[in-house]
Parts: sequence; C-alpha cells; structure tokens
Amino acid sequence: MSTYIFGRSTMVNMDPLFYPEAVAVVGASPDIVRDRAGFFGSLRECFKGRLYPVNPRHAEIQGLKCYGRVKDIPEQVDYALVMLPREKVPAVLEDCAAAKVKFVLVFTSGFSEIGDFELERKLVDIARAGGTRIVGPNCIGAHCPENGLVYYPPMMSDNPGDVAFFSQSGGHALNFLIRGLSLGVAFNKVISVGNQADLRIEDFIEYFGADERINYICGYVEDIKDGERFKKLARSIIIEKKKPFIIWKGGRSEEGARATRSHTGAMAIPVKIWDSVMGQLGVINAESQEEMADILTSLRLGFLPRGLNTCILVAGGGSSVELTDAVSLNGLSVPELSEGVQDAIGEGISRVNTSTRNPIDLGMFGFAPNIFVESAARAAEDPAIDIIMVCQYPEIVSFMVKELWEASADLIVEGLSKIKKPVVMVIPRVVHHRADVDEIRADFTRKLNAAGIPVYTSAARAARAARKIARYLDYMKRNAG
Amino acid sequence: MSTYIFGRSTMVNMDPLFYPEAVAVVGASPDIVRDRAGFFGSLRECFKGRLYPVNPRHAEIQGLKCYGRVKDIPEQVDYALVMLPREKVPAVLEDCAAAKVKFVLVFTSGFSEIGDFELERKLVDIARAGGTRIVGPNCIGAHCPENGLVYYPPMMSDNPGDVAFFSQSGGHALNFLIRGLSLGVAFNKVISVGNQADLRIEDFIEYFGADERINYICGYVEDIKDGERFKKLARSIIIEKKKPFIIWKGGRSEEGARATRSHTGAMAIPVKIWDSVMGQLGVINAESQEEMADILTSLRLGFLPRGLNTCILVAGGGSSVELTDAVSLNGLSVPELSEGVQDAIGEGISRVNTSTRNPIDLGMFGFAPNIFVESAARAAEDPAIDIIMVCQYPEIVSFMVKELWEASADLIVEGLSKIKKPVVMVIPRVVHHRADVDEIRADFTRKLNAAGIPVYTSAARAARAARKIARYLDYMKRNAG
Repeated sequence: MSTYIFGRSTMVNMDPLFYPEAVAVVGASPDIVRDRAGFFGSLRECFKGRLYPVNPRHAEIQGLKCYGRVKDIPEQVDYALVMLPREKVPAVLEDCAAAKVKFVLVFTSGFSEIGDFELERKLVDIARAGGTRIVGPNCIGAHCPENGLVYYPPMMSDNPGDVAFFSQSGGHALNFLIRGLSLGVAFNKVISVGNQADLRIEDFIEYFGADERINYICGYVEDIKDGERFKKLARSIIIEKKKPFIIWKGGRSEEGARATRSHTGAMAIPVKIWDSVMGQLGVINAESQEEMADILTSLRLGFLPRGLNTCILVAGGGSSVELTDAVSLNGLSVPELSEGVQDAIGEGISRVNTSTRNPIDLGMFGFAPNIFVESAARAAEDPAIDIIMVCQYPEIVSFMVKELWEASADLIVEGLSKIKKPVVMVIPRVVHHRADVDEIRADFTRKLNAAGIPVYTSAARAARAARKIARYLDYMKRNAG
Repeated sequence: MSTYIFGRSTMVNMDPLFYPEAVAVVGASPDIVRDRAGFFGSLRECFKGRLYPVNPRHAEIQGLKCYGRVKDIPEQVDYALVMLPREKVPAVLEDCAAAKVKFVLVFTSGFSEIGDFELERKLVDIARAGGTRIVGPNCIGAHCPENGLVYYPPMMSDNPGDVAFFSQSGGHALNFLIRGLSLGVAFNKVISVGNQADLRIEDFIEYFGADERINYICGYVEDIKDGERFKKLARSIIIEKKKPFIIWKGGRSEEGARATRSHTGAMAIPVKIWDSVMGQLGVINAESQEEMADILTSLRLGFLPRGLNTCILVAGGGSSVELTDAVSLNGLSVPELSEGVQDAIGEGISRVNTSTRNPIDLGMFGFAPNIFVESAARAAEDPAIDIIMVCQYPEIVSFMVKELWEASADLIVEGLSKIKKPVVMVIPRVVHHRADVDEIRADFTRKLNAAGIPVYTSAARAARAARKIARYLDYMKRNAG
C-alpha cells in the first residue's frame, strides 16, 4: 500500500476503501426486503475479497458464517457497510473503532440532513478515536468493479475503466453509473459521499487525482465545503495531471437551490459565481446529467474541436435550417465556406435543390453515401472549419427504402472515420416506441462510436458538448506548461 | 362539393386536391430509381380513387394503362402529380390546363428557389389560364390517408385523424408525419407547399380552419407572405373555431435565418417580432419540431394546466433537485405546499430521507406505488397547485429489482388516472441502446398515454410544453366570447 503525497497536503489513502481485502456488512439479511439496497447480495455475488455478514439474529447468510458483532470477525476489516436504524449506529461504530476498521460506510439516514448535527458529530468522534474513517452517513458508499465491490451485479465489467465519479446524491451515483454503462463508459471508481461528516468530496477528488488508473473525473455536487482546497485540487488535476474534470452542479435555479437545502443542507451558491469560478479553473461545467454524459463520452472518443466554426451537412433544406438554428442558439458558428471548397462540393451534386454555402444541404444526394462522405471530407479541408457536424435519418430512410439504409450505414462510417477533423453525428430520434427502429439507430450509433465519432439525438446537445469541450481545450492551451 | 366562405374572403376549395376521384402521375415509372420519391408506387398501393400513370415510353405500369399525355386520360383529372425535369414542366402544365385539371403538384425543383422567378411565373400563368391551381413547385404536395392519398404506404391509417400540418419543407412534412404517427397522432391532412408560386400557406390555413374534420392545425414556416391575411385567419381559427394553432418557425437564429434564404428565399423576420406577434395572436409558438410534437400530443391527451405552479414528486433528493432546476429554468414555479397538504403526505412516509415541501422527495417510499399515487393525489388537493409532475425510473427499478417494476406500473397508471388536475409524467432516458429496456419504457408510456397522461423524457421538455399550453389557455380565457 503506497503513501500518497499530493501537492503539499497529505492525502487520505483510500486504497482499503476501494480495494478492501476484508469487508463486513453490518445488518446483512437473507430477507430481500430487509436487505433493501441489495448490497449484501451484490457483494456475495461479485466481491473478490473476504466477505463477513454481521447480524446477531443469524448464524449463516447465503452460505457465509454470520457474526454477531464486528469485533468477532477473525481478521482486520478494511471496509464495513453499516445499514442499521440510526439509533443503533453509534454502538456499531464503537465496535468498528475498537476493531480498527479502516473505513465505515454509514448507509443510514437521519443525521445532519434532518438537523441532527449532534448525533452525526458523535459518530465522527467515536470513529476517529479508533482511526476509523467514515463515508456518509446518508449515502451508498464505494463502487469499484475491478475488485468486485459493486452496487449491483449488472454493474460488473471486465473493463477496469478509467473514469471516476463522485456524487452528493446516492440516486445520481446509481443513475449516472447506469447511464454511463449503457453508453460504453467504464467506471473505475464511484463514490457516494452523503453528508460528508468525515470524508469529504475534496478527499476523494485528491485521491482520484493521484490514482493513475483514472483519466477522467466527474462529479455531482450541491456545494463545496472547502473552496480553497477544492481550487488547489482542481488546478492540480486539470493542469498538472491533465485529467478532464467535469462537474454537474445541482441547484442552478433559485428553486433548485432551495431544494438542495432540503436534500443535503447545501448553502446556495449563486450560479453566476459558480460558473465563473469553474471557468477560471478549467473545470468543465455541465448543466445537466445528460450534458455531463455527453461531454464525457465525446472526450473519451477523442472528439477534440479546436474552435467553434462548424460545417453542417444534411439532406434537406428544412433540416439544414433546423440544425443551423439549434447549433447557432447553442454557441457554435456556421460560417460560409470558402469558394474553393464550395466548388469542390458542388462538383459532386446538382445545383438544384441543394446548397453548398453552409449549412450544406445535399438534397437527394445526401442519401448517396459516397457523395455524403466526400462532401464532408471536402468541407474538412476548409481551414476555417473546426467541426464537421453530419446528420443522418436512418429511421426515415429505412422507413422509405429499408435496403437503401442497410447499404449506406457501413459506407458512411468508413468514409467519415478517415476525416482528420473532429466529426460529430446527429441522428434525430424521429420514430418513438418502435423496437425495430431503435435497433437500427443503436446499431449505427455503435458503429460510429467504434470509429471514434460521437452521436447525439439533437444538434443542440451536440453543440453544447462541443462548445464546452472546445472551451476546455482552449483553457488547456492557454495554461500549457 | 360545397362552397366555403370564411370571414369575408372566398376560400379556395381544396376538396379536389385532398379528396380527388381521379389522379394522374406524370412521369410515373416502373423503375424504382426513376420513381425516386416512390409516390406512384404508394398511390398504386393505397389510393382509393382512379389512378392514371402518364409516360409516353410505357403502355402499362404496375398493371395500369399508361397514357402518353394528360389530355389522353378519358375523364377529368382532379389532381396531377408532375415529377419531370424542369424543362419539361411548362408543356405538361399546358396539357393540364387544356384538360381542366383542378390541382397540379409540381414536385420538380429549380425555379424561384434558385432565382428563376420567370420560369416559375410562367408555370402559374399557363395553369391559371385553364383554371388549374398549382401546389409547389419544389415540394411533395398533399397527403390525406382517409382517401389513400399518402406519401408512403406505412402512413396509411384506419383512424381518419383530426390534425392538419402544413410545411414549407418537404423533409419536415415527412419527418413530422413519421414522428407524429409513432407518437399516436392521427393526421387528417398534410401539405408540403414548396415555393408557393400559386397556392400559399394562407390558402391551406383557411381551408383547414373551415374543415370540420380538423381540430388541431400545426405548421412549419420560414416566412409568411401575406401577414395581414395570416393574422385574420389565425384569429378566426383560434378564437372563433377554437382550434389550437401550433407553428414552428425555422430561422430563429441569425445563421438559421440566413439558411432559410438559401432554402426558400424567406425574408428574415427577427425572432423577437415573430414571437411577439404569435403571442398577440394566441398562436402556440413552438421552438423546435420536438416541442411542436410535445405540445400537440399533450393537448390531444387533454393536458390543460390553468397555471404554472407545479408540484414535483420523485424518489431521491438528487432527482428532486434535478427536476426542480429543469422545471424552474424553463418557466414553471415550484411553490412550497400548504402545511395541511404537507402533513397529509408526511403521514404516509418516513420523515427521514424525504421532503414534503415541494419538490416532494419520497425517498424509498417513491418505489411503493400506493404511496406514490396517494402522495400525488394529496398534492393535487392544494389549491395553489396547477400541475402535478411525477417522475419514475422504470429503467433503474427494473435494473435493480425487475419484479418490483412489473408489479408497480399498472398501479401507478391506475392511481394517477384518478387525479383531477393535469398530471404529467417524466421518464428520464437513463439506459441507452438496450431493446429490452426500451420496451419497458415504451410499454409504460403507452399505458400512461391511454390514461390521458403525457410522458416526457425530461422535466425541461415537460415544463416547456406545459408553459406554452398554459399560456394558450390563458389567451383563450382572456379572449372568450
């Protein structure tokens, strides 16, 4: 186990939390209703270390010997999950402290978030006396699939992953993890921090910054307790470690900020101040969970636009207006292409019912995959263009002539993958609630992603993500060295 | 055939266009590549009247006798579709005029939209001489499934429908039609107007306003040619006929407006002026195709909020913050509930890890369908609340405990359907590219829609649609009588 030094501070070594050898589940139950969160069952199925259920009412749970108290466990416990009613938590923490348990997750709620600061402080005092550190209370703790320490079995993965996520909401920890997995994101570690009575977001950020397995750090926060420490950590992570750092802050509206006070007791930070500080730090400031996922997945695919000048290619005048509106209202520019590039694109298509100015409306030629990809490649030759945004309607094309779509998809992916500038695909969701159509779209998306091309269901989403990534890259350029 | 009088103007009777007895397709071809749009094949399959292919190079197409010229057809043609190269169009129109064809669709492009105003005017002069009216050029004309006059066979429907859609883009005509069909919208009539050389948007609006089959009118426009006539028609439709009138205008951004000039030669209307005029007229002003579909589907389900005060119900503190932010930033309010209502809701749930203030965070109780629907019913009793917005995560629940979801869905639908105030459901799309999960969401959506409850994938979309509908209802109230 290594000692981490990060900047000048001495970091909390979280290895025994994320890579425990021995885990205790206090309040484990064979009853699925009592094991409400299902965490014991999940660890029984997935955890690669030694697992100890603790519950005086059982001799054995799911084939494992069950212990009456933590101190009865015959080895030192690295990580204990406590899921008992709140009045029973202090006594269990005394046991954990006496047994020198390294980390305790207090899953239980009903502490500072309902105003009981005293009981929460008591937990911390008891734990610290034995050198035990607390995650929570009021959270779901640590997830590290490398080690089989998972919230739920479907979250296991052979891919060790390179993304970390910290969350002030247990629900969002699950939610973003499930969303990310379905988008092909491999999470190395996730932490739900709860009330942060002892271990704070800043401790996890520091550890994730130093962790060489992790290349991307994402977070959901409602407030930051130690602003100065946060700023130092953010600077180190972004500029020294060169890890993109994406934060989605809850409470961006006044009414949402009021809701964060009911949720985590967060002090409201005016959104303008938040946005400005994040901008100064180079933190990528996501405005929703969807946007955080959009930015993360695009970055991981290598979508790295150096500016905001976008060329839009699509079949149809109405669609070209629609995409231009969405892109333009979300911060990108759609400049007229140079004459030479327009002429080159124009050579391949009719001059009737098309436009080469930008947006490029290919008309019916947009359904010819070779012309579509050649036009995109030519647009990419314009030095004024930073981003190639292409749009396809597999749902409509396959609705009209299914064979045409099947013959087109692979040619489009192959052609676009050769373009050296950042390419992003928009596939509007036109048809809803049709499994066959969903599959056509999913299959095309998978192929494009495999070729390093991000895919969005709207030009607005694509534009917002591109703008934030371009701003981050600009920040990195200005702060190089 | 009736004579329509609408206000003081004499309306163009479009019956022979939408309900033709005899249709000619000039340029029909047995070759699928030449019959590019596939319209002849579609009419051959679906049209309920008499269909006449016209093409001097064939004696028969798909089992129908083929005529060399329109004037050879042995009866009067109501509607002729012309899909020939542009240089051949004037001669065909002369034929049509001589044969007293009532309406001609000029599918062909390459007229005023590329600057050839003269050729376009020539077409109109030729046609008018014979009393023939032109739809287009540069469009896909009329769709009326009642009569089998459809763009594509999958667009046929047993439901005669009560929605009309006019579009300045052929692509959007197809796109919105396909989108709407998948959402359960039944279109009575769709028209793609193209360059509006002769028949204009205003003519179709007038006809749709007078058409008793039509209860909802939607449109995609890039500009309005006769503003005064449009205003008069809008007022009549909205206030006298009480038909909701939803318009999505392309070119809301400066760059998008430039794109409309390349597309339809539209004069840019500054978006602020547009929005203000639409507001004065009571037109529901959609900002995207998705929003137009959202508003239309919600209205048709009877989602009629009388104000903007929204109660949000969801399981989880993070989600309650997320929904409140999205709702609040999109124009709705989330006021604190009255004490009595809070107490009633609080009786059913634990006071730990929940909040009854609004947003209502039900914590784990949000997964108990009876508590979920009872809490929603109690919130609806607060006289200050106009809208009940409920959120469920079938993807996450079924990911964790599939049986739990299966047991919940019907109970939730049944319980919510009894609430007398407008209820809207948000089902975030958490899991992507998974057919089994898509089916769970689609099934739940269908059940909710059948119970009159609109469903959105985000609180932001739900809020925008609710705000626009509430504004429309307020306009109607102020302009009653």
